[in-house]
Amino acid sequence: MVLAEEPIGHLSPDHFTITEGPVPYPLEREVLVRVVYAQVRPGARAVMTTTTAFPRTRPGDGIFTAVVGEVVESPDSALPLGTIVTGYGVWEEYLLAPASAVRPVAPRKHMYEHLGLLGMNGLTAYFGVTALGRIRPGSTFVVSAAAGGVGHVAGQIAKVLGARVVGITGSTVKNETLVDDLGFAAAVDRRSATFADRLIEACPDGVDVYFDNVGGPLLDTLLPLMNRNGRVVCCGTTSAYDSAEDAVVAPGPRGIPQILINKSLHLEGLLVANFAADWPSALEQLAGWADDGKIVPLTDVRNGLDSAPQALVDLLEGKNLGQMVVQIAPEEDPLSAA
Amino acid sequence: MVLAEEPIGHLSPDHFTITEGPVPYPLEREVLVRVVYAQVRPGARAVMTTTTAFPRTRPGDGIFTAVVGEVVESPDSALPLGTIVTGYGVWEEYLLAPASAVRPVAPRKHMYEHLGLLGMNGLTAYFGVTALGRIRPGSTFVVSAAAGGVGHVAGQIAKVLGARVVGITGSTVKNETLVDDLGFAAAVDRRSATFADRLIEACPDGVDVYFDNVGGPLLDTLLPLMNRNGRVVCCGTTSAYDSAEDAVVAPGPRGIPQILINKSLHLEGLLVANFAADWPSALEQLAGWADDGKIVPLTDVRNGLDSAPQALVDLLEGKNLGQMVVQIAPEEDPLSAA
Repeated sequence: MVLAEEPIGHLSPDHFTITEGPVPYPLEREVLVRVVYAQVRPGARAVMTTTTAFPRTRPGDGIFTAVVGEVVESPDSALPLGTIVTGYGVWEEYLLAPASAVRPVAPRKHMYEHLGLLGMNGLTAYFGVTALGRIRPGSTFVVSAAAGGVGHVAGQIAKVLGARVVGITGSTVKNETLVDDLGFAAAVDRRSATFADRLIEACPDGVDVYFDNVGGPLLDTLLPLMNRNGRVVCCGTTSAYDSAEDAVVAPGPRGIPQILINKSLHLEGLLVANFAADWPSALEQLAGWADDGKIVPLTDVRNGLDSAPQALVDLLEGKNLGQMVVQIAPEEDPLSAA
Repeated sequence: MVLAEEPIGHLSPDHFTITEGPVPYPLEREVLVRVVYAQVRPGARAVMTTTTAFPRTRPGDGIFTAVVGEVVESPDSALPLGTIVTGYGVWEEYLLAPASAVRPVAPRKHMYEHLGLLGMNGLTAYFGVTALGRIRPGSTFVVSAAAGGVGHVAGQIAKVLGARVVGITGSTVKNETLVDDLGFAAAVDRRSATFADRLIEACPDGVDVYFDNVGGPLLDTLLPLMNRNGRVVCCGTTSAYDSAEDAVVAPGPRGIPQILINKSLHLEGLLVANFAADWPSALEQLAGWADDGKIVPLTDVRNGLDSAPQALVDLLEGKNLGQMVVQIAPEEDPLSAA
């Protein structure tokens, strides 16, 4: 599945097309992976327009993302056939990669856990909450896009660490899930006419940490609510992704830097690669919390490679609940089972 | 000297007036201080219009600032007559204060050193460079308002700690002083038509730390030059002080938060009170560097209380070199000398 045409304004499935070719065969030190699930993430839209830390996606390019699957060819047996691995690929049926570029993972109930809670989104949430947010028991923690792949994990990590967690989403249904099923103290609908007032009500002691997945006007709304020595974790700008404007030239939030000085606020862009040395221990911690039922990962699984473009459009419109993934093949290989 | 009228737009000496009254007499646990020098600082203009961490200055109010002088009345002798102290007062001839609210200081060549290098500006520079900037040897450190009370000290501290220091001022004369006398690697005139190009030339390895005393469009210019994991110390917004617009509602720099995410940038508002426990050791360090000639403090001394309003106007127009102070009385008390 490749980008067929550069989107101007909102993305639609018409901007994509399928290309076909022979399944490649791995050379020395390469492996062939049968892709079972591919991640669908807002950043895939961002790199079509916005200047980010990743290369642009141009017409003809695949949609770069994390995938999980099973090794089906491995000439030098560095990774045995049947090994479950994650790696970076595109929305595709088979990933050909250097054996050193994929990572064997422990079995979980579903392979897609390695694309969400136990993948880059889980790590992003973990280091955003701990290293940048520096959550303390009793802190008020607000997260936007709170039902998204990063947001719903970030909120639950903050809760485990003792914070009072308030979510912001664009949907009352999502908010019910956050409060009833995930233990958020409150959740506020940013599309409500009384949003700002309800957010203030939900944070009677102000905001200590704002985990910002959205950017845009929402950040303007949050800054005046921050407490002294508050911290803003800048993780994403989804409000800007599905637009024609590059977010690196969009007007910034009002009052910066004066409001930062007045309240000794801290804003920091989250680069999860900065914490690579601590990934293994973080993944172990996240898996432990999930196994103990302290964190409940939500996954929105769409069926078939064909569904990926619409899944991304739905994600940009906030129609997902939790981590969006597309299932490209059955978890159990039909050939090996036969 | 009090504010007579709220300035709309640029400040002028006409906005001030002198009020007279009897010299007060201290009650129990109070002292009377003969004020020798009072600080003149950009923040004095800010609090006439901008929402800051400090109370507004309204017509009829004195101009809140740090002062240094000599104890001349001390009923309960907690502080002996003749003790040199610093404290917070207004532009005035005598300060009446609780004995606990003033701080005895060690003798220096000039008392005004306690209002600059060894006062709040020196501490601001120190913690901005060390705790927020986290300077490392070889870092490229850029400071704006680089010839100002905070800026020229911040640049020199960064240099002592091994950084390559580039100053930004609005004057080629100031820039010569920074490079020739204070050891800055380069200094660039922000009023030059080729400013942006010259700043890039002056920072061939990008910018690791930007110590921002100015805010406004200059921050827009710097953000794209920052290196990955770069740090912006938000210390002041002098560009906004002498205007009718409150800086807490002014448009923010373009590209925030996306540009922070792309480069894992860190922006933090500097509140020197957060480091109060470390003030004594910092002051000792600063005095040591000054005594060793590693830091050369610059002071612009104006003469007489009457000169304070024009001194502030000059400061806002960038006509100072280093810390601006007004001398209100001789260092040697003419009465005690007689």
